[in-house]
Amino acid sequence: MAANTTEIRLALPSKGLLTEAALELLASAGLWVYHPNPRQYKAVIPSLPGLTVIFQRPGDIVVSVRDGGVDFGITGWDQVAERQGQDGRVITIHPALGFGACTLNVIVPEAWEDIQTMADLHAKQAELGRPLHVATKFPNASAAFFREHGLEKVEFIDAEGTLEIAPTIGYADLITDLVSTGTTLRDNRLKKLLDGQILASQAVLIANKTSLKTDPAALGVARTLLEYIVAHLRAKDNVSIFANMRGDSAESIAQRMFTQSVIGGLQGPTLSPVITRQGERWYAANLIVRKDQLSQAIAELRQVGGSGVVVTPVTFIFEEEPVEYQNMLKSLAED
Amino acid sequence: MAANTTEIRLALPSKGLLTEAALELLASAGLWVYHPNPRQYKAVIPSLPGLTVIFQRPGDIVVSVRDGGVDFGITGWDQVAERQGQDGRVITIHPALGFGACTLNVIVPEAWEDIQTMADLHAKQAELGRPLHVATKFPNASAAFFREHGLEKVEFIDAEGTLEIAPTIGYADLITDLVSTGTTLRDNRLKKLLDGQILASQAVLIANKTSLKTDPAALGVARTLLEYIVAHLRAKDNVSIFANMRGDSAESIAQRMFTQSVIGGLQGPTLSPVITRQGERWYAANLIVRKDQLSQAIAELRQVGGSGVVVTPVTFIFEEEPVEYQNMLKSLAED
Amino acid sequence: MAANTTEIRLALPSKGLLTEAALELLASAGLWVYHPNPRQYKAVIPSLPGLTVIFQRPGDIVVSVRDGGVDFGITGWDQVAERQGQDGRVITIHPALGFGACTLNVIVPEAWEDIQTMADLHAKQAELGRPLHVATKFPNASAAFFREHGLEKVEFIDAEGTLEIAPTIGYADLITDLVSTGTTLRDNRLKKLLDGQILASQAVLIANKTSLKTDPAALGVARTLLEYIVAHLRAKDNVSIFANMRGDSAESIAQRMFTQSVIGGLQGPTLSPVITRQGERWYAANLIVRKDQLSQAIAELRQVGGSGVVVTPVTFIFEEEPVEYQNMLKSLAED
Amino acid sequence: MAANTTEIRLALPSKGLLTEAALELLASAGLWVYHPNPRQYKAVIPSLPGLTVIFQRPGDIVVSVRDGGVDFGITGWDQVAERQGQDGRVITIHPALGFGACTLNVIVPEAWEDIQTMADLHAKQAELGRPLHVATKFPNASAAFFREHGLEKVEFIDAEGTLEIAPTIGYADLITDLVSTGTTLRDNRLKKLLDGQILASQAVLIANKTSLKTDPAALGVARTLLEYIVAHLRAKDNVSIFANMRGDSAESIAQRMFTQSVIGGLQGPTLSPVITRQGERWYAANLIVRKDQLSQAIAELRQVGGSGVVVTPVTFIFEEEPVEYQNMLKSLAED
Amino acid sequence: MAANTTEIRLALPSKGLLTEAALELLASAGLWVYHPNPRQYKAVIPSLPGLTVIFQRPGDIVVSVRDGGVDFGITGWDQVAERQGQDGRVITIHPALGFGACTLNVIVPEAWEDIQTMADLHAKQAELGRPLHVATKFPNASAAFFREHGLEKVEFIDAEGTLEIAPTIGYADLITDLVSTGTTLRDNRLKKLLDGQILASQAVLIANKTSLKTDPAALGVARTLLEYIVAHLRAKDNVSIFANMRGDSAESIAQRMFTQSVIGGLQGPTLSPVITRQGERWYAANLIVRKDQLSQAIAELRQVGGSGVVVTPVTFIFEEEPVEYQNMLKSLAED
Amino acid sequence: MAANTTEIRLALPSKGLLTEAALELLASAGLWVYHPNPRQYKAVIPSLPGLTVIFQRPGDIVVSVRDGGVDFGITGWDQVAERQGQDGRVITIHPALGFGACTLNVIVPEAWEDIQTMADLHAKQAELGRPLHVATKFPNASAAFFREHGLEKVEFIDAEGTLEIAPTIGYADLITDLVSTGTTLRDNRLKKLLDGQILASQAVLIANKTSLKTDPAALGVARTLLEYIVAHLRAKDNVSIFANMRGDSAESIAQRMFTQSVIGGLQGPTLSPVITRQGERWYAANLIVRKDQLSQAIAELRQVGGSGVVVTPVTFIFEEEPVEYQNMLKSLAED
Repeated sequence: MAANTTEIRLALPSKGLLTEAALELLASAGLWVYHPNPRQYKAVIPSLPGLTVIFQRPGDIVVSVRDGGVDFGITGWDQVAERQGQDGRVITIHPALGFGACTLNVIVPEAWEDIQTMADLHAKQAELGRPLHVATKFPNASAAFFREHGLEKVEFIDAEGTLEIAPTIGYADLITDLVSTGTTLRDNRLKKLLDGQILASQAVLIANKTSLKTDPAALGVARTLLEYIVAHLRAKDNVSIFANMRGDSAESIAQRMFTQSVIGGLQGPTLSPVITRQGERWYAANLIVRKDQLSQAIAELRQVGGSGVVVTPVTFIFEEEPVEYQNMLKSLAED
Repeated sequence: MAANTTEIRLALPSKGLLTEAALELLASAGLWVYHPNPRQYKAVIPSLPGLTVIFQRPGDIVVSVRDGGVDFGITGWDQVAERQGQDGRVITIHPALGFGACTLNVIVPEAWEDIQTMADLHAKQAELGRPLHVATKFPNASAAFFREHGLEKVEFIDAEGTLEIAPTIGYADLITDLVSTGTTLRDNRLKKLLDGQILASQAVLIANKTSLKTDPAALGVARTLLEYIVAHLRAKDNVSIFANMRGDSAESIAQRMFTQSVIGGLQGPTLSPVITRQGERWYAANLIVRKDQLSQAIAELRQVGGSGVVVTPVTFIFEEEPVEYQNMLKSLAED
Repeated sequence: MAANTTEIRLALPSKGLLTEAALELLASAGLWVYHPNPRQYKAVIPSLPGLTVIFQRPGDIVVSVRDGGVDFGITGWDQVAERQGQDGRVITIHPALGFGACTLNVIVPEAWEDIQTMADLHAKQAELGRPLHVATKFPNASAAFFREHGLEKVEFIDAEGTLEIAPTIGYADLITDLVSTGTTLRDNRLKKLLDGQILASQAVLIANKTSLKTDPAALGVARTLLEYIVAHLRAKDNVSIFANMRGDSAESIAQRMFTQSVIGGLQGPTLSPVITRQGERWYAANLIVRKDQLSQAIAELRQVGGSGVVVTPVTFIFEEEPVEYQNMLKSLAED
Repeated sequence: MAANTTEIRLALPSKGLLTEAALELLASAGLWVYHPNPRQYKAVIPSLPGLTVIFQRPGDIVVSVRDGGVDFGITGWDQVAERQGQDGRVITIHPALGFGACTLNVIVPEAWEDIQTMADLHAKQAELGRPLHVATKFPNASAAFFREHGLEKVEFIDAEGTLEIAPTIGYADLITDLVSTGTTLRDNRLKKLLDGQILASQAVLIANKTSLKTDPAALGVARTLLEYIVAHLRAKDNVSIFANMRGDSAESIAQRMFTQSVIGGLQGPTLSPVITRQGERWYAANLIVRKDQLSQAIAELRQVGGSGVVVTPVTFIFEEEPVEYQNMLKSLAED
Repeated sequence: MAANTTEIRLALPSKGLLTEAALELLASAGLWVYHPNPRQYKAVIPSLPGLTVIFQRPGDIVVSVRDGGVDFGITGWDQVAERQGQDGRVITIHPALGFGACTLNVIVPEAWEDIQTMADLHAKQAELGRPLHVATKFPNASAAFFREHGLEKVEFIDAEGTLEIAPTIGYADLITDLVSTGTTLRDNRLKKLLDGQILASQAVLIANKTSLKTDPAALGVARTLLEYIVAHLRAKDNVSIFANMRGDSAESIAQRMFTQSVIGGLQGPTLSPVITRQGERWYAANLIVRKDQLSQAIAELRQVGGSGVVVTPVTFIFEEEPVEYQNMLKSLAED
Repeated sequence: MAANTTEIRLALPSKGLLTEAALELLASAGLWVYHPNPRQYKAVIPSLPGLTVIFQRPGDIVVSVRDGGVDFGITGWDQVAERQGQDGRVITIHPALGFGACTLNVIVPEAWEDIQTMADLHAKQAELGRPLHVATKFPNASAAFFREHGLEKVEFIDAEGTLEIAPTIGYADLITDLVSTGTTLRDNRLKKLLDGQILASQAVLIANKTSLKTDPAALGVARTLLEYIVAHLRAKDNVSIFANMRGDSAESIAQRMFTQSVIGGLQGPTLSPVITRQGERWYAANLIVRKDQLSQAIAELRQVGGSGVVVTPVTFIFEEEPVEYQNMLKSLAED
């Protein structure tokens, strides 16, 4: 059931690191969230009038998007995988927002010295003479994973809060839980199984399929969100560089640049004449390079006569309409 | 299943105001908790060797006590009422630890101007032509309460986290939730029903019945906890006072004191002679009075010739073996 | 009286949100304030030698500028309106620095259910049979506003500190006060009158007229401050964009761009040739667009064959000498 | 005008060190203030039902008490002296609550090397050829003080906020201001005049005279506040001590104690027999001594055969009805 | 060289947990330190005029006391053992102030799997074919300890700051360092040797011997400090209890109490008659018991007819002149 | 001894302002440090795989670099000067990283009114009749400085921690210490000698000479660090500006620009044609100018017909291979 209203809703995580990172992403993408009363669970994005921001817990976001109470949500993939259900009502329109990375792992006591892999759990179960008890907040994803490893009889115990203590107090034999740095595991004398990664998660952008199909305003918001987010994520990995190039003509300089791997890229440089006091011929070359190829680019520019390389930051890089948007349209057309 | 170990376990709330207050109560009662590594979920009470403290979420504490993974727990009555089940395995050995007060209430949108009482909800349900949707973290207690008010068809939606936004986004029609000051309600345009208090809660001390029946060490810990907690709670409300009383004999002073309502209490004062330089007859009277009767006590003492009233704090007042302990023994003997 | 010294002085608010925002504005405008000892009320701007920064309370800043003790000040317009006096010695050289927004409003108890507008106050006064008592920190601005609404007999009570309690304790009947979010009003059971906004305020830059007329160094500082502040405020609302445009010639590309509303703006794009490996003809177009027209600009660029749109931030945009500076000179010449 | 209500009001300082100390004093005196919503300016004292606590700025408290909007106030004597007026409506019922100590001083630039005393200011004024300009928040108290020193022509400039910068920027020649540690003065190159202390201040308890004369409930509150505050302040400076004294009889021990200066005080000790295993004669002596005489008391007790001296804290010492209360009654009867 | 002044000086640790605990100890002992300017390294104790408090680093305190620049110091025993030298100028007048507990240990990489004891280090040295390199802040104490274990050739590397990284970067082979909880060791993959505890430390009170011998004022301060510290440390472990005892006479009650182990202690109870309304015979018994025997004491009191046991805190227990003071005098007399 | 490993190590200061500034410099230079566990002393730079970051105290960094335990270090020049030794094993590869400025000074009591210069210390020494005692953390640098001023007999006392108290307590006559703002000196009644600056320090980049000579990977890291740091420091002081210039041809505009001092700099501007709607001739000029010449550049551009000056930030400016790198190579070749 889509909410009975023309207002478009975007749900964000209500607290913790995910909240901060989501707000920062939106702000960087020119979509600053205005939240004057921190005790209210609503906010607005002044540059997207008609859109209301709602703060919810990461898991509840998935449920709200599925039920159509909200149209869009930013939350962790772990929650989406666990709660989106089988009916296709939740559609993931951006699968990798670049923050909130963690993994869902199978975790056993350090004291289980012989148990290192999922396969070893069969032996453990045999030794106990009863199904293993697994405490988890992710019973769906965990059960699927255990089934894939031939462990069908495991008993899952739905739990909230701190799971790390469960094996110690006999509440469960082992757990599956999210892990970021591993420090908490070590402090509680637990360890990950070597092949026990159930899924790798990061923040994603999801939407309610019905909203997108029936409400043109929602489709417009989806497009704007995707355009800006994609252009911003692309920009984060690139810089713009200007170099002074000595040479007789723009063409000859370009030819020299084409001999190089990074600066002779797909498109070619912009070349503008530099007027010098002494009448020498110089050109200013402008191009975009990936940050992790910057050192290489500097070396190549020097190699072909470049100097005075100025690096400037970029905020967005808009290419053609984003592939994520086209994928979304395709997926909507499929049913 | 009682945990396979001789160690006695006490679970405390792992974070928030309840944690602090529980630690403070134990410290005041001479049972200071030593918790050297805040990232571990275990601690000890040096003056109760053999006891391990475990930090869990308030709701998980009830489940752990029920299953016998821990022997004792301090948590909110709201959680106990919701999760203790029908089988009597959880036994409440102190029902009012004096902190963590809140109420569980039926809460509706402010916009429902005609809905003030539980009875009015029948009309609302008729108007909607379908069962009311109620978001809650307390489905058991809530369902029982709605049934008592003749609302059997209500649909409960199990939810985590922030419920206050649920009515606004159409996730539910109304909610039941814990309320302390009411500010959050007003900020989210919600109101309590006048007769909608499902239960009043405060922190309680619970135990696993099997542990108490089968493990003498657990029974000993129960007795020590109760003795100290009861003696401390009693002391909090009283002070010890010493007054100089002029009079010929201890008996005549006591008779004068017996004419008064507060200082002529059940037991009678301790009276010790004061030796004065000039040979006058004085006695020092010592008695315990309730803090809220202190003004009255001072006035009465002056009335019967008292002066120089010195008030000193008290840490514990131990009376006979606590009635809570006897109740517990009785309840254990019943099955 | 201008201070007897060749040092130029700029007063900034000494604490609170206004302080932070003023320091941030100056830093962004390349005028970073160096304040090594936070307990002293003086600081310097290394890039403006000869200028001393002084920290004062917002209201005192106006008085100091009026009396010539300081030459320039950044403070709220509310304070300037209230305290600048009639003699023209305070001159506002930038009226809208873009932060510190609030409004001064007439505020009455929520319990006055029939009183919604200024006109309703006549009835209230008649009912009381005596002049209304109005507690305020802004007697001048408030009295003028009440006079405009025909309420000449009102009695103003000069107050400091928290005014919101005044109606409750009988200290006044109503108040006029600054409002940002309205939360404090609701908590104290007060409400704004519908037409009771006395003034809208934000931070402004003021100067002492005599200083500007007699001290060329002060005039120079005024010009520098205005140049940088104006160029920075303009830059905040714009971005620079580069797009790759396919086309036979710069002219034909420009003609296509002129058919569009945003990218075919007043001035026209800079177009530089891009040399490609395959010899196709491309040009790089560079132009400045307003942030709130960025989506539109991207769409238009794609429309006329643009791709690879790179957006970069801008720090300043200097146009001709700022109109604010010319206005100031005109105002100085008038007497 | 006494407020048109039966509610009694007590105003406390709304922020800063004075607030904390006032709340601590009341709590220690058994009058704990319950303030659930920190954004509201009202609170209650559960043990004094019928009393409402209101938070205001220190100066506004005096005005509210004078006008009868509140009945009682705790604030600094500096504010009372400045604002209580001549009409006797403000009555100081406890003049020394033991916190908030500071002095109001005449302060001049360090650079005035020849000016050390009030008398030296005559010369300074002559040198300037015009009245001295004195910035102050306390014009009444300051003007009276300057008049006493023969400086009638001084011009006082009413100022808010940070005065320390005033002499530097030419806003005034000198200032009068509150001083606690002097560090801020030194940082701003200022100094106190040697005989320039206008008044010494600490926190006081004031009341509205009309309330006390016409409202028996207010008089009752005054009595309770004074009883508890006086008993608490007295207790803070004393401890209760118990010592074991060897001796044949209580009388002979008392006689030995009377030979000493501290332990042989006005009243005499309480002496109770100690029953020992070996049948020796011991008595337990109990007495109250001043904390600053504790060392001396220990030495004297040892001198006369005491040992095992146990020191316990005291919370209140109630003597006869407090002299402050009698003074207040007298003052009310005078008009 | 004793400082050329009559002022007595007490050095306290200038920062960290030791500082707080030292200030708390002194405050609890009635010797509250007044430190108005936190940027100065001097303070006073108002109840000990003539004494100046100086804040220094723990190690420097020992050096200052040794050289006579300060007369007394509170610091860790680890620092005293390391730096007091052989000449007896530093005298430890209280060896166990009850805070700052830690141990100095020999610590090696976790990777040295075969090295568990000091004896194993001989093998390690042989394997390396060169002396072991030991980074330490305690070369004296460490060298003595290694010598005792027959490791004379070890090379000590004097280091400041974080030693835990030293073995990893090849700066040393192993370290000796202070350990409180062991967490930091585990994080850096280090372990303690089983028999490698060089010393156990806690805070101590030291003095300059010459000061004590030549300056009677210093001797007086030593006595006062010791009296109060000893009386306070003793009080911390005890409580005072009052119980109502039924019985015909004080003597018969006492006899019953003497049959018990805790309440029939060395001295015997104080017994005072309680006058009851009904004329029954009761007595109030007062005695001091150790906190860790409180449960036992309650049980014994009930056993012999006690009830209504009131427990009150104690601040000091002064016995005869402290043995620590007598030891100090003896030590001074020895040379 | 170079560490027995192929891992390259860079040591950073482990706490305080130096740490933050060093991390910020590296992040700005594209070398962001990833430090997931703040309790470990190791971290990595993801864009420089093979490099390990180690956190140490500033002084220990020099020792580690000297001994080869780490290859590179960022620390204060004060520490390098004091601890690098004479053997040339520590090589300073960047001498001025632009943060951490302070000076090492000779500091004497304010009370020494006649002592203003190093020369005056001779008299002081004569007056005392013994060598001056100087407390310091920098005995090497201080001793060299005193020798240069003919003070060879001075006695240096090696001290840790707070030196400012040393003269007051007789621990030393004077001190040499680091000074940033001078406030602490004034609070402790100390002063700097007029010609007593021993050295001026800021953060520097150092390396172990042997590593650079023998390990090509280390040499590569040195080059990368230097390239990025130098390019970043250069960029910090410059901005990129674009201006619209009216003119018939690029050449004529350039000629007009060459008549100006700032905008007619060494290299000449890049000039690209702007296509306007009305067919006027405009060019866009792009050039790099120093921030402190920006005002002048704007004025000059307006002078020669420029308008619409857009200023954009720059992140790096890479010129030829940095001179610091060449100097380093030269220094390595020398031995």
